[in-house]
Amino acid sequence: MAYRTISRSVLLGIAALLAGDAGAADKKAEKELPPKPSVGEVLKGAKPGDWRPLDLENTLYLELPSGRVVIELAPSFAPNHVANIKALAREHYYDGLAIIRSQDNFVVQWGDPHEDDDQVRKVKAAKMTLPAEFTVPLSNDKHFVRMRDVDGFAPQVGHSGGFPVGRDPKAGRTWLTHCYGMVGVARGNESDSGGGTSLYVVTGQAPRQLDRNITVVGRVVAGMPLLSTLPRGPAPMGFYDKPELQVPITAVKVAADVPEAERIRLEVLRTESATYQAVLDAQRKRGGPWNKYSPDYLDLCNAQIPVREQK
Amino acid sequence: MAYRTISRSVLLGIAALLAGDAGAADKKAEKELPPKPSVGEVLKGAKPGDWRPLDLENTLYLELPSGRVVIELAPSFAPNHVANIKALAREHYYDGLAIIRSQDNFVVQWGDPHEDDDQVRKVKAAKMTLPAEFTVPLSNDKHFVRMRDVDGFAPQVGHSGGFPVGRDPKAGRTWLTHCYGMVGVARGNESDSGGGTSLYVVTGQAPRQLDRNITVVGRVVAGMPLLSTLPRGPAPMGFYDKPELQVPITAVKVAADVPEAERIRLEVLRTESATYQAVLDAQRKRGGPWNKYSPDYLDLCNAQIPVREQK
Repeated sequence: MAYRTISRSVLLGIAALLAGDAGAADKKAEKELPPKPSVGEVLKGAKPGDWRPLDLENTLYLELPSGRVVIELAPSFAPNHVANIKALAREHYYDGLAIIRSQDNFVVQWGDPHEDDDQVRKVKAAKMTLPAEFTVPLSNDKHFVRMRDVDGFAPQVGHSGGFPVGRDPKAGRTWLTHCYGMVGVARGNESDSGGGTSLYVVTGQAPRQLDRNITVVGRVVAGMPLLSTLPRGPAPMGFYDKPELQVPITAVKVAADVPEAERIRLEVLRTESATYQAVLDAQRKRGGPWNKYSPDYLDLCNAQIPVREQK
Repeated sequence: MAYRTISRSVLLGIAALLAGDAGAADKKAEKELPPKPSVGEVLKGAKPGDWRPLDLENTLYLELPSGRVVIELAPSFAPNHVANIKALAREHYYDGLAIIRSQDNFVVQWGDPHEDDDQVRKVKAAKMTLPAEFTVPLSNDKHFVRMRDVDGFAPQVGHSGGFPVGRDPKAGRTWLTHCYGMVGVARGNESDSGGGTSLYVVTGQAPRQLDRNITVVGRVVAGMPLLSTLPRGPAPMGFYDKPELQVPITAVKVAADVPEAERIRLEVLRTESATYQAVLDAQRKRGGPWNKYSPDYLDLCNAQIPVREQK
């Protein structure tokens, strides 16, 4: 199996100290970086208590013809929107709607293709719109662990309960950040014009300029490829301009409502654990033999947040 | 067309001054940001001389069954690898090879699936491996324009001749950075074990930890969706573990060798132009009515480098 050797020999390297560049042009001797534990090796040392199961009451299953996307909701960061999205799911608002947009290096979005015509889907007890929750008070967040790495978009960044977070201590506000796989609430020009009837998932380079401009409600923890590989829409902004391009949504369900045998049991590494700090460090400081240079830096949106099937 | 209204009403907003958060929790009045020109509006004011055509001698066409991917090579940043890749293309080394890997939120890679067996493809005049060109002297780069934005991975970042660049003035080195769409040279553990027979393209969040660890040779300027939507490989690191999953490469051609009628005529905004600085500023400082908060910051890998068909 030839590609296997390529697999082993090529590219990746999650495993430091600064060393000289290895370019042919610099003639100095190449210093090898000392080996460092990789993320995989760090995780082997995790204790069972370092992992927490998903809270079924705050987990959504987005059921597509191609399979299931699992979303962890973040009620601490968007309490009203999370409650409304669960209400929408429970009144079957989303079932039969569609993915209406896939824009390369940006987002996939779903919602009601008939939003503006007389076939528009009506809500029952849930709300169409809600006051914005772009940021919340610091007191909402009990689990923030700061990263030491500089960030251009926020005074402080780190993780909280399995989510990437920005915060501004002076303003007393915290918010979820637009990293790959994060789920946000589409809105119009008015801050309060979204409510969760249309949601999007980041599928490209983190569009952090959306931070503090949109209510972010959670993160895809499984099934990203079902969204990220969708054909890009031909219309501006990646919209599917023909109904036959749209991907039907079979259902959106709250995991707690799904019979136990049909659930996927996932657990997330506790981002407040010491093990998670070691995971961050394994990505920040990289070792040989593959790495020739270690950045000694980790970008918030490159920091992996490990998820695995429960044992 | 309902989705059109969603399209207009939702999400994006490329168009600055800091304003208050708009969260329901903060009860202060929402300040509207003043309108700002969008990237599209800035580009409408570009002069013809702000655009430059691709240099056909340094443009590759990666021909796939699904269409053409256009790659601009960067000879200033990897002179020996660029020359070798062109030599490989001209001796038809790549034709009939395959895309062997697609890893979600990371890279697509192509090369010889038979790299390690007796059907391995042989080079003729081109080389299998070359001394690394992870970084080059500052003197190689005549067109660097620095961004004022802080970056965690490099002392300085900016653009040069249409490419995103990092540089370390103290070390006297410059290098291309691993932003979305950048093309690099796969290698083994040894710095000098790559030569361009296997190349990869970034399809996810910028893996900047690879900067200064790999020779980067160019950028995809058209056709990214043909790569970014490829099914993710089921084997570790996204490898296609069955030959039938691999995507055949019809051919890789130097654009100068392609009959004129079969060429795509593209031009890139000169990153050393004042117009490009205005493009960066339009992304850095965002205006209303959609934006409620402007980051006043732009990440290197979020900075668009406009490409269009020649008029």
